[in-house]
Amino acid sequence: MKATVLVRPKPGILDPQGQAVESSLRHLGFTVSEVRVGRVVDLEVEADDAGDARAQVERMCEQLLANALIESYEIELELEPVA
Amino acid sequence: MKATVLVRPKPGILDPQGQAVESSLRHLGFTVSEVRVGRVVDLEVEADDAGDARAQVERMCEQLLANALIESYEIELELEPVA
Repeated sequence: MKATVLVRPKPGILDPQGQAVESSLRHLGFTVSEVRVGRVVDLEVEADDAGDARAQVERMCEQLLANALIESYEIELELEPVA
Repeated sequence: MKATVLVRPKPGILDPQGQAVESSLRHLGFTVSEVRVGRVVDLEVEADDAGDARAQVERMCEQLLANALIESYEIELELEPVA
């Protein structure tokens, strides 16, 4: 089952990469604010059903994909169409 | 208007970060494959309407946020509810 994980810096946590991107975008003439940069992880996980897949991906986030102290994560599952 | 940009390595393009994450997840006991790592950029853009916002964010992607040779991007706009 395909899953997509969005990992973002938590509100209030300094995001130097976002600040650099915001500054560059302004130099290019764009009127932007609140730029934050995080990671997107796409993966294929072997799972019995959507509940199992979500539980596994949550464990992956806690153990490796996200740093819970400073990052939050969001999991999206791509459900296969019923034949 | 809030926008979210997902920037991903194009299919066929080598993704060393994805390979490293996949290897680490397997060492942790997860059965995963096709792991790809990209970036998520959240930002607030000043725009007249959704069309204008999308056009601006597309220009940001072409000029700074994505490398069109090796990355693809996807734009999501968070439309404000009509009062």
